[in-house]
Amino acid sequence: MQNFDFFNPVNILFGKGQIGKLSQLVPAGTKVMIAYGGGSIFSNGVYDQVKLALQGFDTVEFGGIEPNPHYETLMKAVEIVKKEAVGFILAVGGGSVLDGVKFIAAAACWEGADPWDFLAQRSRLTATKAIALGSVLTLPATGSEMNSTAVVTRVSTQEKLAFASRAVMPKFSILDPTVVFSLPDKQIANGIVDAFVHVIEQYLTYPVNAPIQDRFAESILLTLAEEGPKVMANKRDYDAAANFMWAATMALNGLIGCGVPQDWATHMIGHELTAFHNIDHARTLAIVLPGLMKVKRENKKEKLLQYGERVWGVVSGTEEERIDATIAQTVSFFESVGIPTTLSAYGIGEEFIPVVCDRFAARGFTGIGERGDLTIPQIAEVLKLQL
Amino acid sequence: MQNFDFFNPVNILFGKGQIGKLSQLVPAGTKVMIAYGGGSIFSNGVYDQVKLALQGFDTVEFGGIEPNPHYETLMKAVEIVKKEAVGFILAVGGGSVLDGVKFIAAAACWEGADPWDFLAQRSRLTATKAIALGSVLTLPATGSEMNSTAVVTRVSTQEKLAFASRAVMPKFSILDPTVVFSLPDKQIANGIVDAFVHVIEQYLTYPVNAPIQDRFAESILLTLAEEGPKVMANKRDYDAAANFMWAATMALNGLIGCGVPQDWATHMIGHELTAFHNIDHARTLAIVLPGLMKVKRENKKEKLLQYGERVWGVVSGTEEERIDATIAQTVSFFESVGIPTTLSAYGIGEEFIPVVCDRFAARGFTGIGERGDLTIPQIAEVLKLQL
Repeated sequence: MQNFDFFNPVNILFGKGQIGKLSQLVPAGTKVMIAYGGGSIFSNGVYDQVKLALQGFDTVEFGGIEPNPHYETLMKAVEIVKKEAVGFILAVGGGSVLDGVKFIAAAACWEGADPWDFLAQRSRLTATKAIALGSVLTLPATGSEMNSTAVVTRVSTQEKLAFASRAVMPKFSILDPTVVFSLPDKQIANGIVDAFVHVIEQYLTYPVNAPIQDRFAESILLTLAEEGPKVMANKRDYDAAANFMWAATMALNGLIGCGVPQDWATHMIGHELTAFHNIDHARTLAIVLPGLMKVKRENKKEKLLQYGERVWGVVSGTEEERIDATIAQTVSFFESVGIPTTLSAYGIGEEFIPVVCDRFAARGFTGIGERGDLTIPQIAEVLKLQL
Repeated sequence: MQNFDFFNPVNILFGKGQIGKLSQLVPAGTKVMIAYGGGSIFSNGVYDQVKLALQGFDTVEFGGIEPNPHYETLMKAVEIVKKEAVGFILAVGGGSVLDGVKFIAAAACWEGADPWDFLAQRSRLTATKAIALGSVLTLPATGSEMNSTAVVTRVSTQEKLAFASRAVMPKFSILDPTVVFSLPDKQIANGIVDAFVHVIEQYLTYPVNAPIQDRFAESILLTLAEEGPKVMANKRDYDAAANFMWAATMALNGLIGCGVPQDWATHMIGHELTAFHNIDHARTLAIVLPGLMKVKRENKKEKLLQYGERVWGVVSGTEEERIDATIAQTVSFFESVGIPTTLSAYGIGEEFIPVVCDRFAARGFTGIGERGDLTIPQIAEVLKLQL
């Protein structure tokens, strides 16, 4: 096991009816910004529950945070936060609203010229101050409700970049599984795949003798594989919704990544598909991951075999056959929830591959993945295999 | 899954060499009490590392915190904390030192007549204020390094009671697996069994459709079953020590208990064995648990079968045979690390059973366990089966 630091002070309130506790969680006497996305919170009743729970609080609202939240939109909220002296931001939504709020919270306290700098110059600059924030999660998927990371897209430059800071960890997140009851199938499927690939990024690398982390990762993968289809079949199955929701949070709260190597190449390549073609984040992962498994099958051999056996029960055949079967099972799982895994399914052809490669090259690329040895030609190969 | 709140803000620094970071963790300008136990930290080098890391800090020391820390001893530390205006307490030791420090930290801020009240009247009184504390763990076992609970023994009344408060959660805990290298076999064995039974208390109840919690629990049990014997065979095996250490912390940091019923009857009965006969905490659990499994085999049937299959690979035979085999595997595991599971092995006879029963009856007993239905005659039966 490698050395690690683990710190996750997010207070999780899980279960039906927990939104009612909001008034005990938001600091009294603070001006609260309620931030949300496209308005699903109005049809699913969450907005009304939040407003009821926050009766007596001085609130200001900011709606319209889009999927893959835009720097340009968020900067408008930053202005309001400053002008209105907002002291607490409540994200009511999914991962995009949460990520957007993390950016707003940090940007409002940023003393440099442009808050974009703490994303574009992440290796050098960190946002160490932020307005306090909390969340009411409406979509299990990204894990943003219990971590320090956010991803923001700058439309003007077609860039999608991440930042992380302990300052933007939510003070609390309320996870009420009944929000799943009214989600569109597509968002549920995206959430299942997103959470699944988050686990894979921290697990499917090389062994470092960390059996708890491995087994915890497999626990989440197995649960997503079992409960995901149950939710797709009946989104009002409370237990299935709850297990899916908890799986998505546990997938990216730092715990399973403690003391183990991490990959994240699938995310880095996927981000370019979103930046250029606006494909849903989870769908980009479903495209890239199978290609990456094929290209890095030697590097990831031991973990591919372990993953195949423990998650999909793949135990017969030669090692190469078992790896093939394991990749096929992964593809089949993604497609079973309605997520295609090829570029052509999204209308993207071979001509896009050099565009992505050029983007990596322009950033002074030195290799990505758990060993830092995925090269630009290999990125091209990954995408070619998924045409 | 049941509703739950989860909050664990303990900053974990895990791995060799992490003690060196102490000076960044302890607040500058604060008077620090270094609290420890019997002196093993002098022979294993931990004391020297701590002193080196805290050069420049104003420190006061308090040694001699015994196993099952005594109220009478701890109150002496409380006096020093008050007199010296200590602002931070660093526990350097195992679970007893940590529990003792939690009590000292809360008792020093207690405004009532006697701090024992927040243990004896726990249902009514909570310690909500405490001096800030942190830990350098020297013995993987109790999980106290990452939770809000402490157990204290009052010698004058032969009582061993617990309390819990978010105020006493460590600000940080440093877990350096190399501390295991110099532990006596007996302490390692106790730690393995203690952590194992902590998991069982939160897992071996009845199913509530919480597959992540179940699998996480099984992950820890499997890891203890595999890595425990490796540590016993070679305590300088760093990876085995690290996996054992992380298992013990994960066993009782609240995570696997989220949204599931919990038992704790084994602990409650075990505490009486320690209170009256001063048997090591872990050993009392090894005595009580097999008896409890036998007495509650019907109540716990589904989880006993699942535990047997997933942890010990017990899959053949009738349900009753599989439960018998599962209990036998558990006993055999405890005995394989040198921990006897009968009262007679500790020189205790049948005459002790009514003493324990009277103690429970005197406290206004209304049933314990995950269903609150373990009766006093059943407690007698549990102990009788383990004579």
